[in-house]
Amino acid sequence: MQKADIVIRDGLLLTINREMDIIENGAVAICGNKIKALGTTEEITADFQAGKTIFAKGKIIMPGLINAHTHIPMTYFRGIADDLPLQTWLQDYIWPTESRFLNREFVYHAALHGAAEMIKNGITLFNDMYFLGKESARAATEAGIRGIIGEGLLDIPLAGHKNADEVIDYVKSARSEFAGSELIDFTIAPHAVYSCSSANLIKARKLAEEFDLLLHIHVSETEQEVLDAIQKFGKRPVHYLEDLGFLEQNVIFAHGIWVDEWEIRIMKKRSIAVAITTESHLKLASGFAPVRSYLENGVTVCLGTDGVSSNNNLDLLTEMDLTAKLHKAYNQDPTQLQAAQVVRMVTIDAARALHKDEFLGSLEPGKLADIILLDTNTLEAQPMYNPYSHLVYTLNSSAVSTVIINGSLVMEERKLLTVDEAELIGRAGDYRQMIRENLNL
Amino acid sequence: MQKADIVIRDGLLLTINREMDIIENGAVAICGNKIKALGTTEEITADFQAGKTIFAKGKIIMPGLINAHTHIPMTYFRGIADDLPLQTWLQDYIWPTESRFLNREFVYHAALHGAAEMIKNGITLFNDMYFLGKESARAATEAGIRGIIGEGLLDIPLAGHKNADEVIDYVKSARSEFAGSELIDFTIAPHAVYSCSSANLIKARKLAEEFDLLLHIHVSETEQEVLDAIQKFGKRPVHYLEDLGFLEQNVIFAHGIWVDEWEIRIMKKRSIAVAITTESHLKLASGFAPVRSYLENGVTVCLGTDGVSSNNNLDLLTEMDLTAKLHKAYNQDPTQLQAAQVVRMVTIDAARALHKDEFLGSLEPGKLADIILLDTNTLEAQPMYNPYSHLVYTLNSSAVSTVIINGSLVMEERKLLTVDEAELIGRAGDYRQMIRENLNL
Repeated sequence: MQKADIVIRDGLLLTINREMDIIENGAVAICGNKIKALGTTEEITADFQAGKTIFAKGKIIMPGLINAHTHIPMTYFRGIADDLPLQTWLQDYIWPTESRFLNREFVYHAALHGAAEMIKNGITLFNDMYFLGKESARAATEAGIRGIIGEGLLDIPLAGHKNADEVIDYVKSARSEFAGSELIDFTIAPHAVYSCSSANLIKARKLAEEFDLLLHIHVSETEQEVLDAIQKFGKRPVHYLEDLGFLEQNVIFAHGIWVDEWEIRIMKKRSIAVAITTESHLKLASGFAPVRSYLENGVTVCLGTDGVSSNNNLDLLTEMDLTAKLHKAYNQDPTQLQAAQVVRMVTIDAARALHKDEFLGSLEPGKLADIILLDTNTLEAQPMYNPYSHLVYTLNSSAVSTVIINGSLVMEERKLLTVDEAELIGRAGDYRQMIRENLNL
Repeated sequence: MQKADIVIRDGLLLTINREMDIIENGAVAICGNKIKALGTTEEITADFQAGKTIFAKGKIIMPGLINAHTHIPMTYFRGIADDLPLQTWLQDYIWPTESRFLNREFVYHAALHGAAEMIKNGITLFNDMYFLGKESARAATEAGIRGIIGEGLLDIPLAGHKNADEVIDYVKSARSEFAGSELIDFTIAPHAVYSCSSANLIKARKLAEEFDLLLHIHVSETEQEVLDAIQKFGKRPVHYLEDLGFLEQNVIFAHGIWVDEWEIRIMKKRSIAVAITTESHLKLASGFAPVRSYLENGVTVCLGTDGVSSNNNLDLLTEMDLTAKLHKAYNQDPTQLQAAQVVRMVTIDAARALHKDEFLGSLEPGKLADIILLDTNTLEAQPMYNPYSHLVYTLNSSAVSTVIINGSLVMEERKLLTVDEAELIGRAGDYRQMIRENLNL
């Protein structure tokens, strides 16, 4: 009999492997930070002696959810302003708050809150773009969540970085500091074609080439952005990036709402995935992403929450629900975005988008143990005929009961084990007070 | 000092009165089934001695949510089939299941499950359309929720009713049986213009006139329905109903997606409200309701979940979130559907739509005590700058902690006090088994 650090047993196991195998009365054996074996509870308990046993009767066992686009240090901006035109929202609320609070302490605290919130929502990996990323990395490490931290690059000086070279130095230094981390990866995140010069975009690409990084960039979120690019560069944003050579490195686009068919084919050719943040697209009235066309052209689509300030939470289950439903209506076809496909968008497809599918995104022996349990033995979840349908259309994030990341138990029966929730709630209240005073709210 | 049966204290009190008054550190005194007084905690505790005190620190206190269109006995059909064309879904799944299970026992059990689920989601009044409504009324009474039960009328014999006269007799008999109920009201609910003859629509209207009932009817849910009406009657559905004289009685429309400007003006003239069920509209790819035009024309808009089979839950908070966001994007205007306005759609506007605003929909002295508490002292809800924003964009239904209906405490700290949740969960499992076998799933 082999030893396992953790055995999860008695659950409905969704592997999200190539065959989308489902194991009823399923079990997982975890050794160290990896999945050692999967099978029925009978098989796994016959083979493994467990250090810790987690009983999952009435629960779904599945890969952790992957949030493919967010800005977690914006968590304290939850609902500071809503229902406003984009420019008013930015100029009168977001920018004044950022200009006052964009410092190490704020980023660390807000990121810790966001990291903890994501774990409660079943998210085990997030792909972030913000500033002072070492602080977000410290917060993610403390909470025990996996993060790809993109240091934002803009032409204007921000967060103490005077120019692109300083941003690049910061990313290099962050990569060395966290080189031993099993949870954290760093990259550079050029903000957008309208906020980064071509020289800076190329600097970012060179850095990405040197360290084999994934470039994370906002692309074509608004129609205005496309019109501006045509006026300024004589071409649409993806075309511009292609001609710059920016797309020769691994890239993930956030948003990708206003792209044409030619641009979608370029994305396919360059293996660029797109992170759709449907709630934010709707709330800011940015538009409807061409998800159907992406899928028909073989572009990998994954989902993100975007920052809390434009959502207003870090909840991928509602994102799944809304995305699935919206694109049925938008395409006048209820068969669009089948539930199982949407579940793949937050697991294996997102892992592929982030070039992590060798290690993450499905439950298979040898992969990293990022695993969540969702309770379906509740009034709101019964009866259940199809677990994928429930994940997309029925459950909310309060169903997430237990979260394991990199083999470590970080939440058990909705209790976070890595951070003190009451302390985080109290600190959020303190910052709320400061932010209100700063804005004269 | 006066006596109060219940005093709720220390909460953030959203009155949803005409001035949208918010009382910080607010309190409510409840005597019998009515709100006796509102004020600050200091004021109310100075004036009232409480039989029971409910502490609401860190919580929102607000009117119970009103679900303006649903079919609660379909709760057991949660996710039996998704992502299918409407006709396949109906013919291969819903109708075969209904034809097998549309009996008193099934309706009672499924309605009890739905009623309990709605209470957990903060819903205190629902406007239902289904069959064998006495059973739904029994279930609602047992759970302690307020319901307007519409007995479905179609030309085809259903649920043991051979024809319209039998449906009318059933409604009359139900009204006598439940005449003493403070929670239940009965009406007739003609299904739609394509499923009810003009003779039957007029019979329904006459019954409604006789007893001053609100007529609840599906109208213009799909484009096909409108095309069929034009072909069959030479006019669109609302025009047809107007010419029939059907709209001279109080009426609420469910859906109202495919209406033109002339029809909207008729609705305004006849004081007809519309219950929008956005999630179901999207999931079935029915279309985008002209919410902006309704509001600009002064038509009362309220929200419903529709049945669980096309949602797949009974959650008005997600309905609020999705509706607010969708219509911003659809109108390319982020200022559309402000959060406070959407909160009114599930409280006072819904009460007006159902002709109950004299008694319900806001917290005011003399109104019935249908009150809910939502916990905002959580990681997911902090920081909070604006409670309306939180209700629409941030919170999910697990935030609903305590529910009072007609002065009675029916849920406290998420524990239902009127029904045995474990028993309901077990029974849902039994029905699941029977439904699966019937469909050969």
